Amino acid sequence: MNTDQSNLEAYKRITESQPVLSDIRYAREVFPSLGRRHLLHAGPPIKWEEMCGPLQAAIAGALLFEGEASTEEEARALAANGRVKFAPCHSMNAVGPMTGIISRSMPLFEVVCRTSGRRVYSTINEGLGKVMRFGANDSEVIRHQQWLAGVLGPALKKALQHRPIDLRQIMAQALAMGDEMHQRNVAASSLFLRSISPGLVKAGIEPKDLAGVVDFIAGNEQFFLNLAMAASKVMADAAADIPASTVVTAMARNGTDFGIKVSCLGDRWFTAPVETPEGLFFPGYSQQDANPDMGDSSITETVGLGGLAMAASPAVVAFVGAGKARDAEAITHEMMEIAVGQSPHLRIPSLDFAGVPTGIDVRRVVETGILPIINTGIAHHKPGIGQVGAGVVRPPMACFVAALEALVEQGTSR
Amino acid sequence: MNTDQSNLEAYKRITESQPVLSDIRYAREVFPSLGRRHLLHAGPPIKWEEMCGPLQAAIAGALLFEGEASTEEEARALAANGRVKFAPCHSMNAVGPMTGIISRSMPLFEVVCRTSGRRVYSTINEGLGKVMRFGANDSEVIRHQQWLAGVLGPALKKALQHRPIDLRQIMAQALAMGDEMHQRNVAASSLFLRSISPGLVKAGIEPKDLAGVVDFIAGNEQFFLNLAMAASKVMADAAADIPASTVVTAMARNGTDFGIKVSCLGDRWFTAPVETPEGLFFPGYSQQDANPDMGDSSITETVGLGGLAMAASPAVVAFVGAGKARDAEAITHEMMEIAVGQSPHLRIPSLDFAGVPTGIDVRRVVETGILPIINTGIAHHKPGIGQVGAGVVRPPMACFVAALEALVEQGTSR
Repeated sequence: MNTDQSNLEAYKRITESQPVLSDIRYAREVFPSLGRRHLLHAGPPIKWEEMCGPLQAAIAGALLFEGEASTEEEARALAANGRVKFAPCHSMNAVGPMTGIISRSMPLFEVVCRTSGRRVYSTINEGLGKVMRFGANDSEVIRHQQWLAGVLGPALKKALQHRPIDLRQIMAQALAMGDEMHQRNVAASSLFLRSISPGLVKAGIEPKDLAGVVDFIAGNEQFFLNLAMAASKVMADAAADIPASTVVTAMARNGTDFGIKVSCLGDRWFTAPVETPEGLFFPGYSQQDANPDMGDSSITETVGLGGLAMAASPAVVAFVGAGKARDAEAITHEMMEIAVGQSPHLRIPSLDFAGVPTGIDVRRVVETGILPIINTGIAHHKPGIGQVGAGVVRPPMACFVAALEALVEQGTSR
Repeated sequence: MNTDQSNLEAYKRITESQPVLSDIRYAREVFPSLGRRHLLHAGPPIKWEEMCGPLQAAIAGALLFEGEASTEEEARALAANGRVKFAPCHSMNAVGPMTGIISRSMPLFEVVCRTSGRRVYSTINEGLGKVMRFGANDSEVIRHQQWLAGVLGPALKKALQHRPIDLRQIMAQALAMGDEMHQRNVAASSLFLRSISPGLVKAGIEPKDLAGVVDFIAGNEQFFLNLAMAASKVMADAAADIPASTVVTAMARNGTDFGIKVSCLGDRWFTAPVETPEGLFFPGYSQQDANPDMGDSSITETVGLGGLAMAASPAVVAFVGAGKARDAEAITHEMMEIAVGQSPHLRIPSLDFAGVPTGIDVRRVVETGILPIINTGIAHHKPGIGQVGAGVVRPPMACFVAALEALVEQGTSR
């Protein structure tokens, strides 16, 4: 197959993938190699010294949560002295938003591809405000992590026992309901609660716990984000390792570097320093508080959701330019120029049911100069503060140029 | 005030009304005058002999449900012999979809206007398929009514005890999520379940009943319709009885006649024979099976939802014309020509957050020849079959002409 044929195959595999939420598993069960002082983080590989403030703080939080340290100072000293091992979530078939920390006692969503059987994992969304994924790590944050692991995880596991939940179906519906599944998950989170609530109330969960679980999910409009991410990774991974294919299979950021992976180039990361997102800020904060771009959540854009599906979500376009519905449509149309095709399943009603742009082609990005647009939350650059805004960002062009050079080198650039 | 000023006042009152679901009450409690053989129905007043098949069948069903008859024949004989009293739901501050039957043992949503304190009632949505509102009345239908009255009603009542549910907020969100709140209530029903589920799981309901209740609400994408109707009536009633105002305060159909009410003309109905909706039919059915237009659900259009908000819901526009998103926008733009203004609260993202057309002016309808467009379910004309399709319909112009003549007569036509 030539590159165009390979890219069509990649596109086809992405669109045919059927992600389903099948179970809740603890990280230690599914990653037996994940030791006690071994943490996964968002984005490409990175050393402690190079990490941004929120990522270091989240790592300290995870060590506190795991009982590996009893104070933040102790935790930071462990990490600084090389006694903690780090790896990207992506290296273990996982994804996490913002700092994206996964440690062994955390409960994870297990998302399975019905087509291929491939399994992918993501953390459970912690809620909004002061949370570990944005770099908060005080005792309240740790207690909340304990509740996620001790109450929410087991409750969801029981609820899923008799019926897995079709995530592609929820995503298709939610796209028709104003979500783009990165910045906005209001519809998807509601549809998810609707799907799981019959299972939850039949699972024999203690009434007090059940009330807490339903309150938590019902009160979190971004609950679905982590499911959208795991589903997106299942879809993107379906396109991995196709000889001659120049389709992007991962885009991820660690707050210092932006990294992409490309189908025919396997597990190799192509990285460059990240940009800082621009957007709207919560009262009292401004652009100068913004941390550089962070998180595996751009896996949603990798398969055509998030910024690429902006037209589905005029409510999100307030973060960009003039904020008109037509601006949102223009963005999705622009994104179609760098994509192999449009999804037959994930469609946008306001574009007369055109499918989301699917399969970003590295060649077209470099040729056209059009970079994917990413919708994202914005963390404060100081640890412990958390989210301060939301906006958009583009990856550095250097990632795509480096990938193209590697493609040229191995003779698959056209 | 002249008519233009009065209409602006009517428009203002509609938009300022804040419908909130406060309680579940049985019809016998809130309508003490509602006797054992006294039934409320959709649309303007009508005699037994003039009723369409599904309405007569639903009336027989309600008499069976109330234990006033033990066979359908017995029930029909009671009604035919003048031993059953009928009145429009609207005459008791209530609304019901399709046949719209309310009998004394039925549980009702109580919707209160936070602004005025006004109370309005509607039945609880029975679900899809073979249901009484479409004229089904067999033992399964009656048993389901008993479950609504004995299990679902009490469960919802308990769940609402500590926290009323803001319906305008749900409607505003759902409009941004592809619902127009008449034909499509997917988002609103999910958001409603999300709002009420924390209360439900804390209400101390028997686990088996709780499971049944959550299953039922989660499985019914039109569950919110009856709430949208009661909320719409609360809003429309806020505009009633304003001297010189020519704003429509009710549009309702009983399967034989279409009736409208007008603000300054009080409780008087202006009626004309109904049209038959045109649309898409379930497999095995066609246009010739369609019953003439039926139900109080056009109260949603009366306040700018349903067909008037078509642009919010491109998924619904498949029922009309070419079925393109632009067609849906064109319909809402057309509807703006007969409306006093646009809602500041109920907005449509794809129209750059323009508000839904609010306050239908009888004068403009007659002057422009533009009739409101109504999205509607379609019943089979034979009793006992139920819903066979969905589509659109317009009211007969004669209702508006008759109202305009009455306005001229009393000197308030301009």
